Amino acid sequence: MFKNTATTQHKKSFLTSVQLIVIFYLLSVLVATILLSLPVGHNEGVELKFIDALFTAVSAVSVTGLTSVSISETFNHVGVILLALICQIGGIGVMTLGTAVWLLIGKRIGMRERQLIMTDQNQSTLAGLVQLMKQILALIIGIEVVGTVLFFILFQSYYDTEVEVLYHAFFAAVTATTNAGFDITGSSLIPFRHDYLVQIVTMLLITSGAIGFPVLVEINNFIKERKYLERYTFTLFTKVTTTTFAILVVTGAIGFYVLEMNAFFEGKSWHESFFYSMFQSVTTRSGGLSTMDISQLTVPTMLFLSIMMFIGASPSSVGGGIRTTTFAVALLAILFYAKGRNTIKIFKREIYPEDIQKSFIVIIVAMVLCTSSTIILAITDPMPIEYLFFEVCSAFGTTGLSTGITGQLSATGKVILMLLMFIGRIGVLSFLFIIRGKTVTEHIHYPKEKLIIGQ
Amino acid sequence: MFKNTATTQHKKSFLTSVQLIVIFYLLSVLVATILLSLPVGHNEGVELKFIDALFTAVSAVSVTGLTSVSISETFNHVGVILLALICQIGGIGVMTLGTAVWLLIGKRIGMRERQLIMTDQNQSTLAGLVQLMKQILALIIGIEVVGTVLFFILFQSYYDTEVEVLYHAFFAAVTATTNAGFDITGSSLIPFRHDYLVQIVTMLLITSGAIGFPVLVEINNFIKERKYLERYTFTLFTKVTTTTFAILVVTGAIGFYVLEMNAFFEGKSWHESFFYSMFQSVTTRSGGLSTMDISQLTVPTMLFLSIMMFIGASPSSVGGGIRTTTFAVALLAILFYAKGRNTIKIFKREIYPEDIQKSFIVIIVAMVLCTSSTIILAITDPMPIEYLFFEVCSAFGTTGLSTGITGQLSATGKVILMLLMFIGRIGVLSFLFIIRGKTVTEHIHYPKEKLIIGQ
Ligand SMILES: [K+]
Ligand SMILES: [K+]
Repeated sequence: MFKNTATTQHKKSFLTSVQLIVIFYLLSVLVATILLSLPVGHNEGVELKFIDALFTAVSAVSVTGLTSVSISETFNHVGVILLALICQIGGIGVMTLGTAVWLLIGKRIGMRERQLIMTDQNQSTLAGLVQLMKQILALIIGIEVVGTVLFFILFQSYYDTEVEVLYHAFFAAVTATTNAGFDITGSSLIPFRHDYLVQIVTMLLITSGAIGFPVLVEINNFIKERKYLERYTFTLFTKVTTTTFAILVVTGAIGFYVLEMNAFFEGKSWHESFFYSMFQSVTTRSGGLSTMDISQLTVPTMLFLSIMMFIGASPSSVGGGIRTTTFAVALLAILFYAKGRNTIKIFKREIYPEDIQKSFIVIIVAMVLCTSSTIILAITDPMPIEYLFFEVCSAFGTTGLSTGITGQLSATGKVILMLLMFIGRIGVLSFLFIIRGKTVTEHIHYPKEKLIIGQ
Repeated sequence: MFKNTATTQHKKSFLTSVQLIVIFYLLSVLVATILLSLPVGHNEGVELKFIDALFTAVSAVSVTGLTSVSISETFNHVGVILLALICQIGGIGVMTLGTAVWLLIGKRIGMRERQLIMTDQNQSTLAGLVQLMKQILALIIGIEVVGTVLFFILFQSYYDTEVEVLYHAFFAAVTATTNAGFDITGSSLIPFRHDYLVQIVTMLLITSGAIGFPVLVEINNFIKERKYLERYTFTLFTKVTTTTFAILVVTGAIGFYVLEMNAFFEGKSWHESFFYSMFQSVTTRSGGLSTMDISQLTVPTMLFLSIMMFIGASPSSVGGGIRTTTFAVALLAILFYAKGRNTIKIFKREIYPEDIQKSFIVIIVAMVLCTSSTIILAITDPMPIEYLFFEVCSAFGTTGLSTGITGQLSATGKVILMLLMFIGRIGVLSFLFIIRGKTVTEHIHYPKEKLIIGQ
């Protein structure tokens, strides 16, 4: 049924890598919970419950940004800087390990990238990982430094002292680039709802984190190499994920505008409408910051944004969800199937049947997860279904947008969201592979027999 | 990507058959709308709007049972008997054509059935269809006659004259067997909520219609042949669909009971609880009758029943939804994939990769359909999401259960439900094949390139 192109060697490496992600994730959550529980990071008089410290830790490590307590009210400057560092480690750590998993199962980004990343089969896993980690770290920190500088300039009129400006610029750059979605304003980016420059910088930083590490590497190469080469061939992965990302952002903005045309956008100017739509669309890719109160939206808009968050960001990025490529491949596969075509052709390449199979599995498992989580939440936390479904998709997409119910949820409800953040962040396939046993060489074969499917 | 084992000959027959279903369906709806609009079938003073006549027609042809008007208030005895005939034709017609499609694409039920049904490739399509139709008609009418007799005995105490008893017994038998789900009591089977015998007969009739025609044929053969043969081999299809059906009924009953334990079942006796749970579970397979007020249920129960209706009945039956086999194959495929197995082995048979592919596609398309329909309904008909989602799944599963909002829906809302009943009834694959062009022989091939899926 499913072709296993990977050799035993690869399979072993892959399993190790999935285990590596899980171990890294759990250890990070443990350390983060301890760090966030330290009274030195709390404002005076604050008592942080264990479940809330744990929830914030999971949210930070998975760079989701859902919070059951107010960050600005709970944490002082020390706590906030700790939180930023946890997001940094969570974001980059899982991204590195995720990319590694993908490299190790023999799915190299391309010759160019292979040379660059130097992760060859002959090289040891750990050495390759370190190399990869350095690459990612350099890129992300570079982007964050640029972000901090830009925000430092733009925030001058908002805060009194230069230290305050720097503190806010640093946190804003980190939370946007790692798609952490936390805010220390107490009301996300609503104070900047008329400051389009701040919004543009934030959208660019969110996109940098969510577009996927391999894409960043290729763009980096492209810029470096275009002096010498006339033609640069982007990989199929970069083409598919970037195109899908762009289509999702545009569709999201238009959909958001149309659905809120007669509600939120009533009486708003074209530029206000444009920026509200664009920002809220970009942020559903995985950012999690917002320039408006989500709970004010109409029910259809909430459902629409939920679906957008469910799709999520690019693979090997700081985002979650089913991933852009999964969405694109499944959609193309169904369209081509309906048209009676045998192969999916896109950008003069064909897609592997195994990749189609995988994307179907990811989507179905994700839908089952989100639907059953919503039903369980409906039992433990009786609130309007659209609020619960939004929260579920936000956690699974590691987006962090919320209608504001996170703090009111029961302990069971919080645990469900934590599990969704975990699965959404490491990815559904990695999650499935945790429970995967050794690939069994099957000696017994039975005759095949046809079934009736969906007729 | 997708193996086309069928030859051009088969492909052509298949397309013709799908077109046959659609033409049959649309013609039946047209005739039914006219018949149901005839004033001779209406109670005095009733004015049936076109949209409601159309809605009732679609609901009857697809044997769903959702109604935007009260059947007992709108139609007199003539109208009700017309309605029963429309359900009969809709139920058997689509079942016949659906089974034909499946036979014609070379997926015979088995040697035994092939001999029985005599639909050989050498035989003409039409002759095979007539043969098949006769088979199905004989079986269903036989079951309905038995049902009418049993209800005639059981209904003696409920109605005054023998004619009234016969009229109700006839309608109850037809509506249960064809899974039409209409009622002429004005409140479904609530008047029989303490009459367990009536409920048992109804559940058996619903199951006969929803279990699938090939299963009925095999059971028929089994009973006929067991005198002569020691071993009778049921086909994989019958084993899978019957097992799934049984598991769904048991899971549905347990789930329903657990979810309503502290609500509806508070203070109810064990036998009441048992029959309420069993009946409401069986009816979600596609029956649509109920022994209680659905709108009284808690939100989690509504969502749970929605999912059960979404799964629906067996293929080649009078039911709708994604179908039991689709659900079973996708579930098994994902479990086997997670376990690292290459082939799905069940009942000492292996499942074809194409069947797995198909079941994934059916499920994803169905989920997209139901989700987007719910969002559109949330725009056109602002009501609680759980009510809308329930209605959507009920239409797609051609179940006909409702929280009672059908009559209040806007014209757009009704059109959406009609489309869902159509797609749910003919099946998602047949729906996809309507838009399918000729299979293109592809001469151009591109190199394959790997993508990252859901990592
Ligand atoms: K986020
Ligand atoms: K029905």
